[in-house]
Amino acid sequence: MNPTQRTELKELGEFGLIRKISAGIELQNKESVTGIGDDAAVMDTGADQYTLISTDMLLEGIHFDLSYVPLQHLGYKAVAVNVSDIAAMNGIPKQITVAIALSSRFSVEAIESLYAGIKAACAEYKVDLVGGDTTTSKAGLVISITVLGLVNKSKVVYRHTAKPNDIICTSGDLGGAFIGLQLLEREKQVFLANPEAQPQLEGKDYVIKRQLKPEARMDVVYELDELGIVPTSMIDISDGLASELLHLCTRSGTGAIIFEDKIPIDGETYNTAAEFNIDPVTCALNGGEDYELLFTIRQEDFPKLKNHPDVFFIGYMTDQPKDIHLVTKAENKVPIRAQGWVHF
Amino acid sequence: MNPTQRTELKELGEFGLIRKISAGIELQNKESVTGIGDDAAVMDTGADQYTLISTDMLLEGIHFDLSYVPLQHLGYKAVAVNVSDIAAMNGIPKQITVAIALSSRFSVEAIESLYAGIKAACAEYKVDLVGGDTTTSKAGLVISITVLGLVNKSKVVYRHTAKPNDIICTSGDLGGAFIGLQLLEREKQVFLANPEAQPQLEGKDYVIKRQLKPEARMDVVYELDELGIVPTSMIDISDGLASELLHLCTRSGTGAIIFEDKIPIDGETYNTAAEFNIDPVTCALNGGEDYELLFTIRQEDFPKLKNHPDVFFIGYMTDQPKDIHLVTKAENKVPIRAQGWVHF
Repeated sequence: MNPTQRTELKELGEFGLIRKISAGIELQNKESVTGIGDDAAVMDTGADQYTLISTDMLLEGIHFDLSYVPLQHLGYKAVAVNVSDIAAMNGIPKQITVAIALSSRFSVEAIESLYAGIKAACAEYKVDLVGGDTTTSKAGLVISITVLGLVNKSKVVYRHTAKPNDIICTSGDLGGAFIGLQLLEREKQVFLANPEAQPQLEGKDYVIKRQLKPEARMDVVYELDELGIVPTSMIDISDGLASELLHLCTRSGTGAIIFEDKIPIDGETYNTAAEFNIDPVTCALNGGEDYELLFTIRQEDFPKLKNHPDVFFIGYMTDQPKDIHLVTKAENKVPIRAQGWVHF
Repeated sequence: MNPTQRTELKELGEFGLIRKISAGIELQNKESVTGIGDDAAVMDTGADQYTLISTDMLLEGIHFDLSYVPLQHLGYKAVAVNVSDIAAMNGIPKQITVAIALSSRFSVEAIESLYAGIKAACAEYKVDLVGGDTTTSKAGLVISITVLGLVNKSKVVYRHTAKPNDIICTSGDLGGAFIGLQLLEREKQVFLANPEAQPQLEGKDYVIKRQLKPEARMDVVYELDELGIVPTSMIDISDGLASELLHLCTRSGTGAIIFEDKIPIDGETYNTAAEFNIDPVTCALNGGEDYELLFTIRQEDFPKLKNHPDVFFIGYMTDQPKDIHLVTKAENKVPIRAQGWVHF
């Protein structure tokens, strides 16, 4: 490391920075099974089950805008997105810790609202709030949540274990959270221009809810278990289908083909995207924040799952690692890229 | 909760806010042994040992000032203060996760420095960095670390289990980190007034190190174990001796008497406090950030520990819960308060 050198963070990007940070880390404790590189790290405490841990940090002005995000929803979402990381390992969440930094701009009642949301999510996902830290912020609100979970050793699901011919599935429709965000941003601009304007959000309940109150798909984790299915790989869709599919393929050494007409998009997402002149498939591929599960199953497990109302089969893994593409409705092949995926 | 009401955070204070947040939380999972209210939460994963978890969040401008804190030291300290929470439960740290938020003001090289410190602390404390989150901040640097540890079920030490007549011990001298901070702040002001001034820090290595590179006292945890001693209660000294002693007493339902002439203060701390016209005992009681362990032992364990070079015996617990006081060198009794303890 040359102390006089200055490399800008934007030259590396987030994934480049994570690679640099992770470089040279060797796990030294026998209790550490896997570290950085999956939705959660895996620990073996000597119990029958593995312990899982994952962390997310949310900052005001970056991850949320309090001008349209109610604090109670923010608290709920902050827990849900962490639980989603445990779901993506096929695990059961058990405890969270919550560290918050806040300024005197927040009243005690506001913080109680935030924690009402956190506690509602704890009740929903059967998670205990066991610890945390409260501190002062000179700038905005910061929330950092860490979640612990447990998973049977034979049922833990990683990103790197998909095989060619495995079927690629999602646990629900995509793109709604992104379109919900566009709507909320539009209404904020309208309000700023004219504080007496009434928000135009009728008939938009679904996409607004997808943005403000996403759910971790623990229901799907339990249902897969009841059906006797252990996915061959899994990740949660926080950054968009394209980015997550690339993670599964890169880590598993597979290629993938997905089909535009199989990507699940809700009617309200579709229509609202049209209002914004945005391609709804772009929303699904690159929008993010849907917190659905993207997973792969063996072909022989398909019959057990084919009638599940929430699971969509969008394509399959291949043995061509460099070939990850979308087949459009017009049967064109379009390469999938993590960001800036340009519609044809 | 009345939505029209506004109560200011300063009316409650940090501990009042934590009480309000914690109110009504009932642990629902059998795996959750204890939650909020100790240095770490305790989980039973079904293994022979309990799992411990603790979280700390550090914000630029609140917890550290990058004009005199090198990033490498900051990374080291951020890990050490978390490990200290595991030490305070008599546990062994095993893994950490690190969430950071940073702005484009930081170069890749700067972040590598920060992580060099984090990794150096991981090596020192035999901890694995297993996960994290990297995100953008519009304001300053935020670091949130969560640590996991393990502890034998028969050796976990809580805050609430001290008994009258137990001897109160500290693992090292106090007040140094606070005086180190005063020195660094003074030199910063000098530098701001005259950028060509040379820092006056000769002979201040010890107190500077106490502030910039504190160590978690894992050595003492291992030594107590070798001596066959399980403390009856323990806490780490992050906020100052007065505040931590009050925590032990309040949670244990005991009173305490400590003796001014028994409080360990290093010579450099003593002399530097004199330069600043600050009473060194005030530094020890209210300064904070020493990250020594404050613990209690049974009278019968005293012979095993009396010759330990790093352990100081400063007083004893009593059966008078409301009577927590310091006996001065002049044999006056002064009540101990958490903050704003005024010297006589």
